[in-house]
Amino acid sequence: MIIDRLIDKIKEKKNPTVLGLDTCAEYMPDELRVGIKSFKDAGKAVFEFNKNIIDNTADIIPAVKVQAAYYEMYGSYGAEAFQKTLEYAKKQGLVTIADVKRNDIASTAGAYSKAYLSHSDISGEAAFDSDFITVNPYLGSDGIIPFTDDCSKYGKGIFVLVKTSNKSSSEIQNRVLDDGTKIYELMSDYAAEWGKGLTGKYGYSSVGAVVGATQTAEAEAIRKRHKGLFFLLPGYGAQGATAKDLAVSFDADGLGAIVNNSRGIICAYKKYDGLNYYRAARKAAELMKDDLNAYLPL
Amino acid sequence: MIIDRLIDKIKEKKNPTVLGLDTCAEYMPDELRVGIKSFKDAGKAVFEFNKNIIDNTADIIPAVKVQAAYYEMYGSYGAEAFQKTLEYAKKQGLVTIADVKRNDIASTAGAYSKAYLSHSDISGEAAFDSDFITVNPYLGSDGIIPFTDDCSKYGKGIFVLVKTSNKSSSEIQNRVLDDGTKIYELMSDYAAEWGKGLTGKYGYSSVGAVVGATQTAEAEAIRKRHKGLFFLLPGYGAQGATAKDLAVSFDADGLGAIVNNSRGIICAYKKYDGLNYYRAARKAAELMKDDLNAYLPL
Repeated sequence: MIIDRLIDKIKEKKNPTVLGLDTCAEYMPDELRVGIKSFKDAGKAVFEFNKNIIDNTADIIPAVKVQAAYYEMYGSYGAEAFQKTLEYAKKQGLVTIADVKRNDIASTAGAYSKAYLSHSDISGEAAFDSDFITVNPYLGSDGIIPFTDDCSKYGKGIFVLVKTSNKSSSEIQNRVLDDGTKIYELMSDYAAEWGKGLTGKYGYSSVGAVVGATQTAEAEAIRKRHKGLFFLLPGYGAQGATAKDLAVSFDADGLGAIVNNSRGIICAYKKYDGLNYYRAARKAAELMKDDLNAYLPL
Repeated sequence: MIIDRLIDKIKEKKNPTVLGLDTCAEYMPDELRVGIKSFKDAGKAVFEFNKNIIDNTADIIPAVKVQAAYYEMYGSYGAEAFQKTLEYAKKQGLVTIADVKRNDIASTAGAYSKAYLSHSDISGEAAFDSDFITVNPYLGSDGIIPFTDDCSKYGKGIFVLVKTSNKSSSEIQNRVLDDGTKIYELMSDYAAEWGKGLTGKYGYSSVGAVVGATQTAEAEAIRKRHKGLFFLLPGYGAQGATAKDLAVSFDADGLGAIVNNSRGIICAYKKYDGLNYYRAARKAAELMKDDLNAYLPL
């Protein structure tokens, strides 16, 4: 069960951090950025940047999250960098999350699942082989089941968007239904339902939930509602959430969630004078680990 | 205004059909499929298939919709076929819709918008330059505004998922809020709101709505609620909707919506003996045009 592998890695490294590789030219230091004249150059630079950051953090972090949007900007060369990053991270023993927020009707969701989770008829492995992907649940069960079927078959997982970290998430997600349930609660109920049968040895399911680290009240409500729902928490650092805000998402053993940090790590070189980007990234990752450990009994 | 260009093309060709290029190896005839041994082969075959279908239908259809999932299955080679298909369709004068259903927080939505709608800092045009993309509204306004800003700047459009064509869409989209509004109605209200300022000469906005062709009652309700919301209607053909079901989505002039057909056109060769895949596609597209025109005063 992939959720067990993720939790084992978190325990082994005493660190529930996901390194978020939202890598694009604008986030890179000048020495890498100036050479970029084409999408091909950008793809190469992105992978080099990611590789150096992975090499300098892989011993202290359990997982990486690769955000598709930043790679799609560079077309097929970006797709290549995306694939190579996932592959390289996997080789370094990291759990990989493709943050793609895909969603569609069943036949199309099946095609997305082939791209990320299942096996290709042509080349064996999925083109963008990932341990987890993020998915958007607005289409309901029949758009999710192709993914969970493949999670069972191929030992993969998904994180379902439940309550997102952005301000406007309340416009829809906090609306109250006629039976008193909030939309994000309804989504968490579906996520728990979809994850039945994928529960591992720690009591958590390989179908988890994306819950904004900035959304303390909602995180607490969802945690109370579903003990077995593992959270992917974006919003720490650049988006404003602190380690203290996150504590409600974890259980008494310090498990139950993983905290993403993208710009706070990959752009740390802007903050730490005298350190190059990958040493700065390591320093930021170390500080984040300490910050989280002050609140978690890992 | 891109919505005007789309409507002009629909009027000129008397045909509100979108050719849906959900192209993957399984949908191809044997003669194209047998040669596929790698993702590279698949990418080449997919583009060749699409090009031949476009060449044989471009004079009778106004627009194509390219479904990203089927291309992502083939990794960076699929991405290349996706880009080349969009580019080729544009060169043939067709309006292009990238069916990507993207969604994320503002900074990331901005990156997606760069990939599809706006201009790249590196190479001028967007990597996957498209006239329209589809987006999922679950994150609320701040995840959509980066797209609508670029729609204004670069003359592009979006279709917001409102009521999808799949059976399970009711699980979430038909839930009723405490004020009596249904979720899909709420989404249609947001879509209308986001589209203010992007209304063209026919009274329709470049921010449209995805409404399942199979969802007659909901389509009628949304049409009554928002006269200026242009619909993208998937679900005709393979998913079971007929031309009669669709009539409620159109206005008295036969405008207001465009009907997607993917498998019904690209897999038509399985139905019409003696015709190769692109001649069969043309025949299916002609029959669909006649079918729609029987109900629409175009």
